Amino acid sequence: MLAELGSAGGRVVRGPGDDAAVVRVGGAVAVTSVDAMVEGVHFRVAQIGWEDAGRRAMAAALSDLAAMGAPPGEAYVALGAPPAMERDEALALCRGLAETAAEQGAVLVGGDVVSAPATFVAVTVVGWADSEEELAARDGARPGDLVAVTGPLGAPAAGLAILEGRAEPPEAAASPGDALVAAYRRPRPRLAEGRALARAGASAMIDLSDGLATDAAHVGRASGVRLDVDLERVPVARGVAEVAAQLGRDPAELAATGGEDFELCVCVPAARRADAEAAASLTWIGEVAAGEPGARFSTAGQEVTLAGYEHGREAAGGG
Amino acid sequence: MLAELGSAGGRVVRGPGDDAAVVRVGGAVAVTSVDAMVEGVHFRVAQIGWEDAGRRAMAAALSDLAAMGAPPGEAYVALGAPPAMERDEALALCRGLAETAAEQGAVLVGGDVVSAPATFVAVTVVGWADSEEELAARDGARPGDLVAVTGPLGAPAAGLAILEGRAEPPEAAASPGDALVAAYRRPRPRLAEGRALARAGASAMIDLSDGLATDAAHVGRASGVRLDVDLERVPVARGVAEVAAQLGRDPAELAATGGEDFELCVCVPAARRADAEAAASLTWIGEVAAGEPGARFSTAGQEVTLAGYEHGREAAGGG
Repeated sequence: MLAELGSAGGRVVRGPGDDAAVVRVGGAVAVTSVDAMVEGVHFRVAQIGWEDAGRRAMAAALSDLAAMGAPPGEAYVALGAPPAMERDEALALCRGLAETAAEQGAVLVGGDVVSAPATFVAVTVVGWADSEEELAARDGARPGDLVAVTGPLGAPAAGLAILEGRAEPPEAAASPGDALVAAYRRPRPRLAEGRALARAGASAMIDLSDGLATDAAHVGRASGVRLDVDLERVPVARGVAEVAAQLGRDPAELAATGGEDFELCVCVPAARRADAEAAASLTWIGEVAAGEPGARFSTAGQEVTLAGYEHGREAAGGG
Repeated sequence: MLAELGSAGGRVVRGPGDDAAVVRVGGAVAVTSVDAMVEGVHFRVAQIGWEDAGRRAMAAALSDLAAMGAPPGEAYVALGAPPAMERDEALALCRGLAETAAEQGAVLVGGDVVSAPATFVAVTVVGWADSEEELAARDGARPGDLVAVTGPLGAPAAGLAILEGRAEPPEAAASPGDALVAAYRRPRPRLAEGRALARAGASAMIDLSDGLATDAAHVGRASGVRLDVDLERVPVARGVAEVAAQLGRDPAELAATGGEDFELCVCVPAARRADAEAAASLTWIGEVAAGEPGARFSTAGQEVTLAGYEHGREAAGGG
């Protein structure tokens, strides 16, 4: 939508269409992303409470910086609060925001609090790099690159299914049910991994908040290539199989489409494979090919069609 | 609220409590402010349309940079859109945002669009200065300083009263009714004036979005001084008297409390009076005194009590 309006400016290195906007000023490069969440649409406070709502909102915004490989700096928040919201509730929300920022090396600096019919939290995060060369983007994947993810997928989606009562927590000594719910409520964006991977030569990177199926296609379209992903190689988090079985779904398919994951999908030139493996714990799941831009998922060589996961969200620049 | 959480960081020169946050990075100083508006609370689309809603939201955010004396750079938007919102409506809103940004030398770079039960627009604006010495803030007013405003007040408040059907447009050859409504629908933040005043030695500055009564008190409290304002010297915009009469209110009181004004209130050391007058068209309305921090309004030497105007808005840092 913003791209249609043709906005661009002298300082702007990257505008609408990537995980974050990149602006060069003086000797510094500012990387900025905006991420908004609405109660009842993107989270339900009855399920996760105000503090974890704040944690999720901040994690989602910071995850965009992780995908750019940008070290985090400051965060700003616009909070819409219904008249019935108690001061303690608003403080819990802000505590979740501030603590998650602090855990990731960012600082919650300012914001605006307004009256609104439904609670919303819009987080703007700014990261700072020395130069744009040390950043990653979505549009650099090239045929022959290898495709990886930074960790097992599906835990947040399985946790949400448990929270919503659509599945029972799996029984196990190590209580993976709690771990699945925690993965949803208190996600950890991969900032250190993203930064290390960008410096290790990643050709393209994206976070998996919309799910691997959707986000790998974003990279493919932005880069003008096809990401070929082998669904059998997609790592599935512990306990997800048990939840997927209750939902009547294939575990890898749930992991690839469930969304809410803050792991990264990264493309790496084959020559930099060892550097990337030194930078972060990776699971290789496919290759980049010439072909219709997007992503292609297959099992045992057979293409499978995966439903994306958009969650009431329309992608826009910098978000 | 943020101040209670005690957030502050190494790069942060000014955090919660001013019109904008100030962050020093490399050779540059970033000045960042967030301003959110909600349909039905801060504007009604049936009254002003989507494009002017966008204009008002961007103007309000940029006005915070004007109050800091910061040249504008980039803007980022979080848009909450109900399912019923048409694409053309969203585009009109974005056009209003982008055009107002462009008119003021800023660029709308990115954002996030999400589904929401009520439309909200949260705008984050970033301005860039060479050093924090060229910026103004709220906390520098000192006893003996002079107090001025950059233009006649009350037009937007009178325009809103006309739009809401609480008053008839005044009849006149020059059609001030249209001018009053336009002042509300398409406000012009005082960026050039703010920057010139900051460089001309302004000791404190604030924009009048909450109204002179409320905002002068903000400066007084932040600076630990009392702003003594002579209500008879407050300049009242043309046509406001006629609307005030219909509302049964004193014109100067309406001008001082109506809010929605994007003029600036500035404090200037007496020795810099001529510099300030060369920087912007000013009307001197009072002096800064030692005393209980806040603002004191008087008519013919008699103190008058003015109701503030908070408009469903709670002030927070950087907002």
